Amino acid sequence: MTTTCTSPTEFAQRLDQTADDIEALLARLLSDDVLADEITRPRRLMEAIRYSTLGGGKRLRPFLAVESAAVFGVPREAALLVGAALECIHCYSLIHDDLPAMDNSDLRRGRPTLHKAYDDATAILAGDALLTLAFDIISRDEVHADPTVRLLLTRALARASGLGGMVGGQMLDLAGEGRFGDREPVDVARLQQMKTGALLRYGCIAGAILGQASQQHYAALDDFGRALGEAFQIADDLLDVEGDAEALGKPAGADAALGKTTFVTQLGVDGAKQRIRDLLARADQALAPFGDKGDVLRAAARFVAERKS
Amino acid sequence: MTTTCTSPTEFAQRLDQTADDIEALLARLLSDDVLADEITRPRRLMEAIRYSTLGGGKRLRPFLAVESAAVFGVPREAALLVGAALECIHCYSLIHDDLPAMDNSDLRRGRPTLHKAYDDATAILAGDALLTLAFDIISRDEVHADPTVRLLLTRALARASGLGGMVGGQMLDLAGEGRFGDREPVDVARLQQMKTGALLRYGCIAGAILGQASQQHYAALDDFGRALGEAFQIADDLLDVEGDAEALGKPAGADAALGKTTFVTQLGVDGAKQRIRDLLARADQALAPFGDKGDVLRAAARFVAERKS
Repeated sequence: MTTTCTSPTEFAQRLDQTADDIEALLARLLSDDVLADEITRPRRLMEAIRYSTLGGGKRLRPFLAVESAAVFGVPREAALLVGAALECIHCYSLIHDDLPAMDNSDLRRGRPTLHKAYDDATAILAGDALLTLAFDIISRDEVHADPTVRLLLTRALARASGLGGMVGGQMLDLAGEGRFGDREPVDVARLQQMKTGALLRYGCIAGAILGQASQQHYAALDDFGRALGEAFQIADDLLDVEGDAEALGKPAGADAALGKTTFVTQLGVDGAKQRIRDLLARADQALAPFGDKGDVLRAAARFVAERKS
Repeated sequence: MTTTCTSPTEFAQRLDQTADDIEALLARLLSDDVLADEITRPRRLMEAIRYSTLGGGKRLRPFLAVESAAVFGVPREAALLVGAALECIHCYSLIHDDLPAMDNSDLRRGRPTLHKAYDDATAILAGDALLTLAFDIISRDEVHADPTVRLLLTRALARASGLGGMVGGQMLDLAGEGRFGDREPVDVARLQQMKTGALLRYGCIAGAILGQASQQHYAALDDFGRALGEAFQIADDLLDVEGDAEALGKPAGADAALGKTTFVTQLGVDGAKQRIRDLLARADQALAPFGDKGDVLRAAARFVAERKS
């Protein structure tokens, strides 16, 4: 693996700083007193949304948006807004995936899931509201002076989140578990490219869109985002086999209990680790055009692949 | 009530024609072979979405978008796309509202609801996918040459659908039923302005946005849309009391069974009917600046207020 000029300590500080900034921005976007032009915001629903959205998480997807935007010198405030919209989508997907009708999870980040802390109806509506809010945020004037840029961000977000992206991937995942009758054969790489890869990739290309990057630079970040997305999921599958329940904030071994096809069942532990090394090399290579401006993203790929939770 | 130059037959023909056009457009947007740039579209999810979205409905919201756009001479194809996006939002809201955790409805338009015909997980994801698709559609180049117009349409759609609109209204409705503990006091007008009014109003202002209307003309359609939205809901509440289950495609008396506060419980049957007459007069007055170009919208308000299903 190549070394980068970003030390682990420096990287951790940057990650924490962006997580803090996103936390503050989401708290502002989700406070009761903003958007006074709206009729009203039901109190319980707002509380439920804040419960699920504030107070935790590495904010990895926003971090990718912020750092890919930084490559092109985009103002941090604009990238944070895009990151906040992306995090709204991520949080809604966790709320809906945790529902009894879906993965039926009681714990998330070591706390009761939203439908456990509130109820199923509130959880469904909180997810719907967050998904909708993401498109409100991403289309705002403050995101970029050029409306065409905002539209590109909007459409790419819809594509990453929808039928051909995250939602479609979750559906394939459930089909692979045999939820709709016979267990359907799973192409793990394709499924995960949609279910988890699409939003991670969006974080990376969002910076290029914001920065009005050349086609070549856009393609480079696209390729980087795809490699990082796959590495993220393989690391996730490895954690489910080798991870520590306490660090994860949820039980390990859940995939095996469901008999799920994962990268690890398909490649074996050693094969999965080799695949991660290959993907990190591809991620590094994709960033070559950016020289040392790509260092933080390089470190991000490594962080994603080697994380313990 | 003033008479309009649009005969009931002519109006019915226009409504049917737009319903047919929206049906064809949605069938195209939801076919398996469009959007080849997306990775894949899970088969079962697409079937479920088509089950809920195609084959029925008056397509009233798209009709309002098409006819308000026609006032400004907007090309029909553009208005139909906006109408299709709006219908995606409407259909997703029906799917999620019907879920066991929400209204627990078994029938919709005389057919099994989506979660009955498929399953709860598929219904949740179909709703999520349709909501997301709406923002994909509304941001497309074909909607309008000016990106600023598309952004205005996008943001207004998010506002009409989200926390301060439809989703927030559904939350208030559930709170009023006592779903979260004590039955919360209900301001019916405010609740319905959010729950059903916001999307109907959006149909009306979408035409003004597409037509780059003057501020005065925008305000006129906004006022028209608000009056029509309230009239729609009062008519709905009256149908629940006086309506015919077969024509409705669902049982009548559902509100009373739940002990819900409605316009009818608040105003009485006669008071509700008087309120509808007042709203129709306000709708007529709002359209005054458009002369006979407003005739179809005038007829639409009357249709909404006097409908039998």
